[in-house]
Amino acid sequence: MKKYIIEELQSRAKRLGPLCIGLDTDPAYIPHYIVQSIGGGAAAAGLYNDLLLKAIAAEGLAPCVKVQAAYYEAEGVEGMKVFSATLKKARELGLITIADIKRGDIGATSTAYARAYFSGDFEADIVTLNPYMGRDALEPWVEWAKKGKGAFVLLCTSNSGADDIEKKDLSSGEKVYTLAGGMIKSFNDSLKRKSDKVDPIGAVVGATQKEEAEKIRGDYPDTFFLIPGFGAQGGDLAVVKTLLTSAGGVVNSSRAILKAWEKDKTLSDKRKAGSLSLSDIAKSAERAAADAKSILTSL
Amino acid sequence: MKKYIIEELQSRAKRLGPLCIGLDTDPAYIPHYIVQSIGGGAAAAGLYNDLLLKAIAAEGLAPCVKVQAAYYEAEGVEGMKVFSATLKKARELGLITIADIKRGDIGATSTAYARAYFSGDFEADIVTLNPYMGRDALEPWVEWAKKGKGAFVLLCTSNSGADDIEKKDLSSGEKVYTLAGGMIKSFNDSLKRKSDKVDPIGAVVGATQKEEAEKIRGDYPDTFFLIPGFGAQGGDLAVVKTLLTSAGGVVNSSRAILKAWEKDKTLSDKRKAGSLSLSDIAKSAERAAADAKSILTSL
Repeated sequence: MKKYIIEELQSRAKRLGPLCIGLDTDPAYIPHYIVQSIGGGAAAAGLYNDLLLKAIAAEGLAPCVKVQAAYYEAEGVEGMKVFSATLKKARELGLITIADIKRGDIGATSTAYARAYFSGDFEADIVTLNPYMGRDALEPWVEWAKKGKGAFVLLCTSNSGADDIEKKDLSSGEKVYTLAGGMIKSFNDSLKRKSDKVDPIGAVVGATQKEEAEKIRGDYPDTFFLIPGFGAQGGDLAVVKTLLTSAGGVVNSSRAILKAWEKDKTLSDKRKAGSLSLSDIAKSAERAAADAKSILTSL
Repeated sequence: MKKYIIEELQSRAKRLGPLCIGLDTDPAYIPHYIVQSIGGGAAAAGLYNDLLLKAIAAEGLAPCVKVQAAYYEAEGVEGMKVFSATLKKARELGLITIADIKRGDIGATSTAYARAYFSGDFEADIVTLNPYMGRDALEPWVEWAKKGKGAFVLLCTSNSGADDIEKKDLSSGEKVYTLAGGMIKSFNDSLKRKSDKVDPIGAVVGATQKEEAEKIRGDYPDTFFLIPGFGAQGGDLAVVKTLLTSAGGVVNSSRAILKAWEKDKTLSDKRKAGSLSLSDIAKSAERAAADAKSILTSL
């Protein structure tokens, strides 16, 4: 019996470490003169991604990459070509791909969205989902788990706005996000086979959720987490450590890696001279990723 | 002082009626032999949209169209070209465009998403937003209201899954969706000028929300609604009527219009013979839209 993709990701994270490299490649993260010399933001982001993906695969820096759709959609049709090419390249290189799309819509529409991100030009292995609209928004994606695809459903996110709805108290005494948790549990109950040790559907839990981390880890012991908020968002290493126990998870870092060149001491002369190359900034990102990996594996 | 786009939509809805025509143009809604003769799903959807948009503008069938992103994303890069072309064509024809994207992400990412749908290839006048991740997920879009753009935030959706999170009880005695309502109110308080009669940020309220409709209409008297669920989703006309009082709204119909050819008696011979043309099905959609308009304006 084939393992679900989330369990496959868990195995690889045990081998390579729990870093997930976020390709939220806003062209603004690349020196403007490099973007100009390449002839456009989307193209520059695509080449930057390519260099990074090759390094990630060659050095075994991470088992997976998370590609944030927003930054590609913001570049229009050209951006979507790069989004497609980045996902294809990552999969060719044997990396597990997470399309960070946070979709969720009425059933018929979620069915179309699932087709969009589990097949065709934008095919990824795993997606992120927004549970707000309820079961029928999630079901079409869950169906695809049996065909080798996976999902991380938002449980408790890393941003300040998590306080506005997700962490509000219900009359039941639970918090709103536990309703998402209940749906995740019920999908996992229906999918899980005796041989599966890890839940087939994962959850997004922010590294910034200090107060919630222990409770969440305890309440969902078999659920694999996608943990954003480490790095640029100021997530807490103690929280990350807690969330990585039990079924574990992968810890995403995007901006801190993509923009590492801005603070990289070895590049200070070139940075001042305005003579950085794409290869320079990709190597800087590679070093930052290696550092992040080493911090995370030593936890 | 320029009117906010939502008030402009309200004025036009008073003149042309409250129908919003949903271009959720799944190629599967078009007879397969037409798709084949055109040479692909995305291209067929694009041509179908073109014919419909021309009819909508020429006949004054509706003040706005809602383009559901999922069906274009599902067709990959070619689909995104059609999504872009459809939005451009609609705006050229003077229709107000609603990109139904239901996005919502951490602040930095929502900023990129707002750029994606309020400028460039995928520029629309108004978007739909998912409030689940809280204030910072919505703020970047709200900023754009001052630059002539608008948003409908999900308040109480039309699908069965609305029961799973949105309609659950909070410890405060309110329902979860009122948290979204509170954010919408606070954004509107900050945007509204003395001369504005209608709230600059609108809300999505499903035509299927029978029990909630009166309360919601009463609680948000100055908020303009996008009302899905009419037509194929079986929304209730009495609910629609209630929701259209006070500041009013627009009522979306997608599938019942796009797939009207399947039940159109005037086309039964051609349908049986498999000899329908794109123009046939577009005319059928046009008749269905005219019928929907007449039902809605007579409420």
